[in-house]
Amino acid sequence: MARKIGKQTVVFDKNIAILNSACCVGKVEGEGPLSSTFDLHFEDDYLGQKTYEAAESEMIKQAISKVLKKSQISQSDIDIAITGDLLDQSIASTFAIKDFCLPHFSVFSACSASALEMGIGAIFIESGAAKHALCTASSHFCTAERQFRFPLTYGSKRTPNSQRTVTGAGAFLLAENKNAPQIKAVTFGKIKDYDITDANNMGAAMAPAAADTIKTYLEDTSKRLEDFDLILTGDLGKIGSKLVVELLKKEGIDISKQHDDCGLIIFDLNDEKCVAGGSGCGCSASVFAGHIMQKLKNGEIKKMLFCATGALLSPTSQNQGLSIPSVAHLVEIEGCKL
Amino acid sequence: MARKIGKQTVVFDKNIAILNSACCVGKVEGEGPLSSTFDLHFEDDYLGQKTYEAAESEMIKQAISKVLKKSQISQSDIDIAITGDLLDQSIASTFAIKDFCLPHFSVFSACSASALEMGIGAIFIESGAAKHALCTASSHFCTAERQFRFPLTYGSKRTPNSQRTVTGAGAFLLAENKNAPQIKAVTFGKIKDYDITDANNMGAAMAPAAADTIKTYLEDTSKRLEDFDLILTGDLGKIGSKLVVELLKKEGIDISKQHDDCGLIIFDLNDEKCVAGGSGCGCSASVFAGHIMQKLKNGEIKKMLFCATGALLSPTSQNQGLSIPSVAHLVEIEGCKL
Repeated sequence: MARKIGKQTVVFDKNIAILNSACCVGKVEGEGPLSSTFDLHFEDDYLGQKTYEAAESEMIKQAISKVLKKSQISQSDIDIAITGDLLDQSIASTFAIKDFCLPHFSVFSACSASALEMGIGAIFIESGAAKHALCTASSHFCTAERQFRFPLTYGSKRTPNSQRTVTGAGAFLLAENKNAPQIKAVTFGKIKDYDITDANNMGAAMAPAAADTIKTYLEDTSKRLEDFDLILTGDLGKIGSKLVVELLKKEGIDISKQHDDCGLIIFDLNDEKCVAGGSGCGCSASVFAGHIMQKLKNGEIKKMLFCATGALLSPTSQNQGLSIPSVAHLVEIEGCKL
Repeated sequence: MARKIGKQTVVFDKNIAILNSACCVGKVEGEGPLSSTFDLHFEDDYLGQKTYEAAESEMIKQAISKVLKKSQISQSDIDIAITGDLLDQSIASTFAIKDFCLPHFSVFSACSASALEMGIGAIFIESGAAKHALCTASSHFCTAERQFRFPLTYGSKRTPNSQRTVTGAGAFLLAENKNAPQIKAVTFGKIKDYDITDANNMGAAMAPAAADTIKTYLEDTSKRLEDFDLILTGDLGKIGSKLVVELLKKEGIDISKQHDDCGLIIFDLNDEKCVAGGSGCGCSASVFAGHIMQKLKNGEIKKMLFCATGALLSPTSQNQGLSIPSVAHLVEIEGCKL
């Protein structure tokens, strides 16, 4: 049985593992510092499809096929598929999953999808409802820009604090197993709204949510920061990463030594295309599925917190001038060789 | 422990109850045949808000407040809130939940949200992750029409097979309890795509998904149709309801005696505004939260299947001329006085 502890945290009893993961990314990501950690990277942003949306679906499909192959299981072994993307009505995931014939639902929690899905998937396994849970999260620079900001063909200039949506998809296979990275606990986040309205400054919008979830996890579990090799946020980028450290310092929590952010490490930040770092569901998903999973499997990371962050804006809420409420969900992960 | 049986069904061990429910609806719904079963109905489609989107959020908030009051618990007792609506990036739910300060995520599964959330919520309770799970589902005629079809001010003529999106929100509080309607099992659906492309004919798009999920549930559990007083689909409306009965008849399953559809009973079908019945997440949610919960509580319904149906289209997929993939999730429910 799982146990709810404190205000928002669930601790697992079973050995719930991320058995395998896979990730596919686009050209810019494939040329970045984490190049060697991705399973596949594509030169063509269309992946041979007619639209960018179809290209995003294709990335998800490739990531799923890859993780099934690595795990040597077939799609009929999957009890539940949980997916998440940024597009209206989760359409990238829908058109990917429909070809796999899997029991399925999508979550929407913006770029916090990867950690959220790991938490939900772990609960499915803990309850006995699933032996194998498949989680995917994706984003595509071209689908996100058109939807949330401007069509690319406008060629609009990027602001200095704007993050680049990662073209990438990650897939994770969860199952009960002792010999793979373990999901020990999940903290489901609450929505925080600091009245940021600028869709080009999402790091600032999301930082308070990340700070709140990390603080809540530490209070709920009475764990100490020294217990962790790494506290990894999802896609706060340059500005949000500074802010989350500052916000937590005010609460007497200094994460500066252990903190890193997927949005900071996926791109070469000297590249003018990637001014303030990466963002998107595919950012944390592909960094975790590749780079981080390698380190968890080879024992380089022993204990970590993965806190994925989501900016819950929509084109409609932006057009109406509303603020950007944000949320962060956190999973506690242990590496293989403790 | 829950048990996975057959291909897609999870059977619960605990006494997982829908402790209480509440629903708020708009003017047309409030004047319809189920008028007396709703907790609140509003004359003004804006509910005193500036936009229809804010009005939808306000409906959700009122439904949550009502269900908390009925259950005599406070918001801090809620371990997880699971929400669903039709809007891009689930924005109606986000702006409703942010004022309640609850651990939260949204699902997107279009109009199948209510049954899907009951299934996920039950798994949270079964696993020990939550004592109280709050589920909400909502839609608003004016937000949905603008998003998926035309702005209302165009005054475009409705086609004979077009369903009317219900203005309504339902909230359900799930907890372990023997003395309220019981969630016995859930069947998570697979996406079905019969190449329907007409967003004004969603009943036809969704009927194959409903037929598939009902058939799978019966196969997985070896239950017989005679075991059930009612097999209730979500929002197939006139056309989809006929189709689901026909499709299942071809498989040797005759649900014609027990079948009904929330979209058929929420409106007076002689009203020209409601040509082919109701649709939207709020359709099945408000009919179930009001009308059906009354009958489950007074023993009029002893055993039923609730199969909510979702058309997974987006404005983008429609503009690209793509088909409308659909899904249906099913929960098996038992009334109070068996």
